[in-house]
Formats: sequence, structure tokens, C-alpha cells
Amino acid sequence: MKVTAAQLAHLLDGSLEGDPEAVVSRPARIEEARSGDLAFLDNPKYESYAYTTNASVLLVHESFQPERPIAPTLIRVADVRNSLALLLEKFDNSLSNGSVISEQASIHERARIGIGTSIGAFVVIEEGAIIGDNCIIYPQVFIGRNVRIGSNCKIYPGVRLHHDCEVGDNCILHANAVIGGDGFGFAPQADQSWKKMPHVGNVVIENDVEVGSCTCIDRAAMGSTLIRSGVKLDNLIHIAHNVEVGNNTAIAAQAGIAGSTRIGENCLIGGQTGIVGHVNIANGTKTQAQSGLSTGVEEPNTAVFGSPAIEYKNYIRSYVIFKQLPELQKRVRELEKALMALGGKV
Amino acid sequence: MKVTAAQLAHLLDGSLEGDPEAVVSRPARIEEARSGDLAFLDNPKYESYAYTTNASVLLVHESFQPERPIAPTLIRVADVRNSLALLLEKFDNSLSNGSVISEQASIHERARIGIGTSIGAFVVIEEGAIIGDNCIIYPQVFIGRNVRIGSNCKIYPGVRLHHDCEVGDNCILHANAVIGGDGFGFAPQADQSWKKMPHVGNVVIENDVEVGSCTCIDRAAMGSTLIRSGVKLDNLIHIAHNVEVGNNTAIAAQAGIAGSTRIGENCLIGGQTGIVGHVNIANGTKTQAQSGLSTGVEEPNTAVFGSPAIEYKNYIRSYVIFKQLPELQKRVRELEKALMALGGKV
Amino acid sequence: MKVTAAQLAHLLDGSLEGDPEAVVSRPARIEEARSGDLAFLDNPKYESYAYTTNASVLLVHESFQPERPIAPTLIRVADVRNSLALLLEKFDNSLSNGSVISEQASIHERARIGIGTSIGAFVVIEEGAIIGDNCIIYPQVFIGRNVRIGSNCKIYPGVRLHHDCEVGDNCILHANAVIGGDGFGFAPQADQSWKKMPHVGNVVIENDVEVGSCTCIDRAAMGSTLIRSGVKLDNLIHIAHNVEVGNNTAIAAQAGIAGSTRIGENCLIGGQTGIVGHVNIANGTKTQAQSGLSTGVEEPNTAVFGSPAIEYKNYIRSYVIFKQLPELQKRVRELEKALMALGGKV
Repeated sequence: MKVTAAQLAHLLDGSLEGDPEAVVSRPARIEEARSGDLAFLDNPKYESYAYTTNASVLLVHESFQPERPIAPTLIRVADVRNSLALLLEKFDNSLSNGSVISEQASIHERARIGIGTSIGAFVVIEEGAIIGDNCIIYPQVFIGRNVRIGSNCKIYPGVRLHHDCEVGDNCILHANAVIGGDGFGFAPQADQSWKKMPHVGNVVIENDVEVGSCTCIDRAAMGSTLIRSGVKLDNLIHIAHNVEVGNNTAIAAQAGIAGSTRIGENCLIGGQTGIVGHVNIANGTKTQAQSGLSTGVEEPNTAVFGSPAIEYKNYIRSYVIFKQLPELQKRVRELEKALMALGGKV
Repeated sequence: MKVTAAQLAHLLDGSLEGDPEAVVSRPARIEEARSGDLAFLDNPKYESYAYTTNASVLLVHESFQPERPIAPTLIRVADVRNSLALLLEKFDNSLSNGSVISEQASIHERARIGIGTSIGAFVVIEEGAIIGDNCIIYPQVFIGRNVRIGSNCKIYPGVRLHHDCEVGDNCILHANAVIGGDGFGFAPQADQSWKKMPHVGNVVIENDVEVGSCTCIDRAAMGSTLIRSGVKLDNLIHIAHNVEVGNNTAIAAQAGIAGSTRIGENCLIGGQTGIVGHVNIANGTKTQAQSGLSTGVEEPNTAVFGSPAIEYKNYIRSYVIFKQLPELQKRVRELEKALMALGGKV
Repeated sequence: MKVTAAQLAHLLDGSLEGDPEAVVSRPARIEEARSGDLAFLDNPKYESYAYTTNASVLLVHESFQPERPIAPTLIRVADVRNSLALLLEKFDNSLSNGSVISEQASIHERARIGIGTSIGAFVVIEEGAIIGDNCIIYPQVFIGRNVRIGSNCKIYPGVRLHHDCEVGDNCILHANAVIGGDGFGFAPQADQSWKKMPHVGNVVIENDVEVGSCTCIDRAAMGSTLIRSGVKLDNLIHIAHNVEVGNNTAIAAQAGIAGSTRIGENCLIGGQTGIVGHVNIANGTKTQAQSGLSTGVEEPNTAVFGSPAIEYKNYIRSYVIFKQLPELQKRVRELEKALMALGGKV
């Protein structure tokens, strides 16, 4: 795909500075871009590259004030990330070649497949499953009994969707994710062994949800583990039985949420965060990576850090002094000496 | 399935208060239950729901003393969790429809499959593998050369069991778990590259073990990585080569155990815990979530926390003061001033 | 395979002490070895076993000075681990039985497969993919459009290689690893929802790389996520979009690297380490397990620990005092009392 700077500016409703006939055929990162590439400047950390990049066109914020002359044609837009998302869709090469139902898939005769949906090789779709329109079910996916999937979903290779789970519209489940495995629940027995608690609930994933590769969402003991609309889950996340994740909350990689915890809307959960079971996390909570929440969060829009987690700014204040503890200990020792020198007793 | 309160009380050997003819058709969580549901009260955190729930029948501990009147029929039992486990089995809808060997599976002619065992589509079973009776091998499982699996096991979709590994009776391996991948062992070379150590051992999983989704248990360099009877492993756990996990130990999600470490019996390893290699962890050790054990634990039944982990109560005591460090630092500063005011030298 | 101590000493260019005709048929760990086994002593922690082992032959370092008599025949070598690696290859039982292309694989007619490469059952290879010579593609692997794989690679069951990704020569990808899933990138919208950033880049894995089971390496937003030659990745690791990992760096299990971070050469990243996005980590950096790096590392060969991570020895120094904080607090309290006794004001 080749496109001129003028065409791009028109598409993005942006204003143009420089050569409107500059042609680009590929998006590229500002520090790597070559002639013929379209680059962008979103993060101020990368501003120095704006003066050295070989990109032919550079996408910047409308308020950007260069400190030195800039070689590429500039396109100024109100929101760089949104404009970029729009452009990348144009360059996206990942689309499938139309709807095909592989003859090498194993589809139960009492499963229902919507219009425009393609099914890859070695997919298994069990009895009673219902899949909506215009979905792409990649090869080697497992879809258990009575699973329901909405329309416009992409289910990547190796995803396992266990029986009775539900997925809404416009969802993306990345490779090898597991939805609806049994929760980790056991009753302790007198002889120190464990008796398995059967898990007769399911997982309900609403609309516009993305689930990362190898992320595991366990089914409820009873009722549903609930992933609300707009939730984004990164790779290798653990969501235990009966957890609820509120609308538009984003959870970074390798975080883990223990059983029956409710996470509010619009939260940002940092990578490798752990959250204990049976607590409520208020809307807009933000956890720093590696935080460990041993209690709930009551106040909306709280930022927390540490293990056990406390308010972010309190953790940072304490941690600054933690780093100076050898010095603090020394000061105490000197105080003791000085006090004794004055005749005090410690 | 519909059942009366009287039938439930009889089945559970419980005592009944209220309408013995109350009918339930579904188990549900106490905070979500509707009329016609069976709920339970196990965790005191949820007691307030007992007075507002719409459940028709409520399972409680025999010692439960309600503070206000309760609408549902009560069934009092000696152990709520065990009674619930028993009931949930009755309601469990996940059972397969009898033994079938899929024609779309690839089974080596020199593999042996027991009586009553079903094999799903796109399963691969290699030469010399032996599978016991009454197992369910779900679709898309890989079972390598000379693998041995006992009886009454469930192997969920996408599990990979590498060559020569062994699984006992009554085991459950959840989706996409990997058993017997090579351990992470390399010999450093003079040019800073790494030479791979071949791993000629295997993994031995004894009886009554449950392994979570995407959990990885590496094969031994030589000898066996050993998961003893009754062990329960949650999702996304890493068990390195030559680790041994003792009977009935339970490990929560995303924990990682480094090579050659031996974990005792009846331990409770918290989520996201990390344990260093080549150490012994005593029987009954309990690690708080996110603990990092850089040494072994000698004393049985020790609780630990922190990274590096120390005794739980010591970590908590220190962490309380960690949170007050800015204040402590201020007090030291004021002491210094006061001492100087008295003519001291610091 | 049966071999004499004399043959082993010759093969390893080692010196022999004891019976040259001692025969071994199996490698074993020193603490478990029986008569007829070959054991080794590499880690001084295990030296006590040298005096009690039943092994018939024991591999030791050329400088080893036993404190007591030793029963097995000794073979002294310059590098125990390298010698062992060489031997284990001889005993390795995991090799495939020659090149076979399964008729149950789904291979696009415009994919190219090299000489001596075997393809297992239920593998999917899409249009335009190119696979080199002498590879083993195990069953149930997914290889997307235009993927390129070099020669002498092993791709274990359930690996997913998404479209346009590249893998060099002599690479090993363990079971259920996911290469080239979309990065976790979204543009925040005015209504608090997220707009997906398309990811039009790929993943490039150079030569001699090993990737652990269930490890996920995301594709670049644009450009490439880069895993340089000789890199070793353990299980369940998360590598985000546009990360670069330098030559011969080894990363232990469950570590996570956020987007666009560059990790230098010859680094050792401890298990469960987290590294923030958009930073540089200098060559030779060593992170203790569970470290959390919130900034880059400028000085090569730095060892770090803690969350947020600081220099290893500084963290340890502070942590020693952290463990004594209750005592330090008590000393401050006593100082305050003593000072007041002297007439001071605090």
C-alpha cells in the first residue's frame, strides 16, 4: 500500500507541514524508520529522534513545537495514538481469506455456526455449541458443549473454551488461552488429603474483551466468573473462580486474581500484581507492577504499591528511607554514643 | 435435577429447620441465589447475606446461631464444604457421554488403551504409551512415547505429556498443561554462549494429583521430577527439573519452584511464591503469596513471608514499621536536634 | 547402552582412578545412584554424597580432593558440566525415528518443507511458510502464513507461530509456547473504553535460541520483537511487543519484560523478575529472582534486587536492617526517653 502525506492528512483530519506528495508504504518506529516510512511521535522520551529520523512522514501532536528543523513532512493530529490505530488497521496484513469451514475440523451435528464464520483445521466444536456470524476460529481450537460465542470474534489457535462458557461480540482470545477450567477449590480432609469441590458454574465474557495468550480464566464453583465488557487481559494472567472484572479494566501480564474477588471498572492492574480472594477493588484502582493486595480497596481511584500493598505515595516514601536504612541505623548508633557522652543512659 | 430440602438433609445427614418440602434445582452463591436455589454459608464474611438471600434452602454449619430470622429452610451439617462437595457432584454437568475412541485420533498400533477409556479427536498417542481404564482423554492431547497413565484420569484438551513420563490413578490434568518439557539447564561456555544439558530423566506424577491449566512441570536431567500423591497444583505454575513435591501439598497459581528443590508434605505454597533451587522445605510449611524463599525451611509448620522470606510474624512486624519509616526518620532528626540543643555532638 | 569407565575417560579426555572395567548403563544423580550408574559431582553442596554413593563411576573436577576414601571409579575432567552434557547426549532417548510427513497434517500447497524435516499429525502449516532442513515439527503445532523457520529446529507440540514470524537455525521451542500474538497496546478513548492498536510487526528469533513451555513472545506493533542468537528463555515468560533481548542472555521462569525494553547481552534475569517498558538494561546485568526494575540499568555487569530494584548489595544491606526494624524503633524510643531524662525536648 502506497499513500501520500496529503492523503494521510485528509484521512486523519490533520494539518500538514512540508511536502504533501511525500509517499510512504510502511509504518515504522521513529528510531528505526527509513525513507518511505511513516513514523510517529507519541512519547516525549523519543523526541530526539524527530530531528534525526529518516522517515518520510512523521505523525505528531497538534501542539508539538520542534526545537530544531525537522526533515520529514509533519502531520499534526489531535490524538497521535488514535490516529495511529486508525492507520495501522489500513496496513494490517493479518486478515483471513474469507469464510471457510475446514473439512478437517470436527464439528458436532448439533452445533450451530453463523454466517461468514470460518473454522480452521483440527478445531473441535462439541454438541450444543453456538457460534455467531463473521467469527474466525483458527486451527486447533477446542469449543466444548453448549459454549456460546457472539459475532465478530477471533479465537486463535489452541484456545480451550470449556463447556457452558459464554463469549460476547467482538472478542479476541489469543493462542492457548484457557477459559473455564475448574477452579482451585478443595475441602481439607481429616487425613490431610483434599477433596475436590466440583465446579458447576461457568465463565461469562461480555463484549469487546481481549484475552492474552496462555491466560487462564477458571469457571465458577457455581454462578459465573464474569469478565465485563471492554476488559483487556494481557498474557499469562490467572483469574480464579467467581472473580468479577469490571468494565474496561485493563490487567497487565502475569497478574493473578484469587477467588471471588470483585474488581471495579476502569482499573489498571500492573504486571505480576497479586490480589487476594474475597475482596472488592474500587473503580479506577491502579496497582503498580508486582503489588500484592492482601485487602480490598475502598476508595475509588486509589494507586497502590508494595506487598502487602499500601497507598502508592506512602510506599514510595517509605521505600526511599528503606534504601537509606544503613545510614539511619548509623545515626541511631551515633545518637546513642553522643547521649552517653552527655551522661544519658540507653 | 429437582430435590427437596428433606431429601438433601437425609443425603447429608444434616438436621433441618423450616419447610422440608422446599424444592431446589440449582446450587448458587448466597449473594446471588434466587428462589428455587440451594445456597450455603461457609465463610463468616458472607453471614449478612443469610438474612437477605432468596435461596429456598441454605446449608449452614451445625453451630450457626442466626442473629435475625432467616427465610430459607436451613440444613445444618458438621462440615459445610464437604457437604457442598458431595452435593455439587450430584449437580455436575460436565460428565462425558460414555467411552468413545475418536476415529480422528492418531493412536500408534503399539500403544495400549484400557477398558472404558475415551479418546477425543486429534489426540496423538505415540508408540509404547499405556493408558489405564476409565480415563477421559479430551481432544487435542499429546501423549508421547512410553508414557504411562493410570486409571480414572481426566486429561483436558491441549495437555502435552512428553515421552517416558508417568501419571498415576485418579489424576486430573487441566488444559494446556505441559508435563516433561526439558529442564532449563545449560553449561556456560568460554565464548559466553550456553551448551544445552540434555534431560534424560522424566516426570512421575503419583495418584490423586490435580495439575492446573498451563502449568509446566519439567523433566529431570536424570532421575525423576516427582509429584507425590494428593498434590494439588493451580494454574500457570512452574516446577523445574528434579523438584520433588510431597504428599498433599497445595500450590497456588503462578508459583515457581527452581531445580532440585524438595518440598515436604502438607505444605501450602501461596500464589506467585518463588522458591530457589537445591533446598529442602519442611513438611507443613506455609508461604504467604509473593514470598521469595532464598533458603530452605528446616522447622516444620513454619509460616514465611517476604522476599527474601523470613518468618511470617517477623515480616509483618517489620513491615508495620516500614510503613512508618518517614515518621521514624523524623524522630531521629528531632533527636539529633534536641541532642545538639543540649550540647551533644552528632 | 553399556560403557566402561575406561571408555568414558577416553571419550571425555579425563584421567581415571580406580577400576577401568567398571561398567555403567545409566546416568543418575549422586544422591540416588545405584550400582551400574554413572554419577557426577559438580555442586560442592553435594560432596558428602561422594563418600556414600553406590554409583559405579563418578565424574569429578580435576582438582577434587576427597577427604575420605571413595568407592566408585573416579573420572577427573576439566569441566564437569560440559563433560556431563556430552555424555547425556549419548544416553538421550528422545530422538525421533527419521523424517516423516504425517498424512494427518494440514500443509498448504504453497508452503515449503526442507529435506529431512518431519511433520507430526494435526500440524497446520499455512500459505507461504518456509521450513528448513532436518527440523522436527511435533504434532499439533500451528505455523502461520509466511513464517520462516531455519534448519535443525525442534518445535514441540502445541507451539503457535503466528504469521510472518521468523525463527533461525538450531532453535528449540517447547510445548505450547506462543510466538507472535498481538502486543498489549490500546489507545484510551473519551468514554473510558480502549481502542485496539493493530500490531503489524513480527517476532524475529535468531539462531540457537531455546524458548520454554507456555512462554509468550508478542509481535511488534511495527518492526520486530527481537530475540538474539543464543538467548535461553525458561517456561511461562512474557516478552512484550518490540522488546529486544541481546545475545546469550538467559531469563528464568515467569519473568516478564514490558514493551520496547532492550535487554543487553549476557544478562542473567532471575525468575519472576519484572522489567518496565521503554528502558535499556546494560550488558551483563544480573537480576535476583522477583526483582522489579522500574528504570533502566546503565552500568554493565550490575547486580540488582528488590522492587523497585536497586543494587543487589545495597538491597541486602537495607533488608538486613528491615528485619531488625522493631529493635531499631525500640532504640529510638529509648533514646527519646533518655534524652527527656536529661532535660531534652523531643
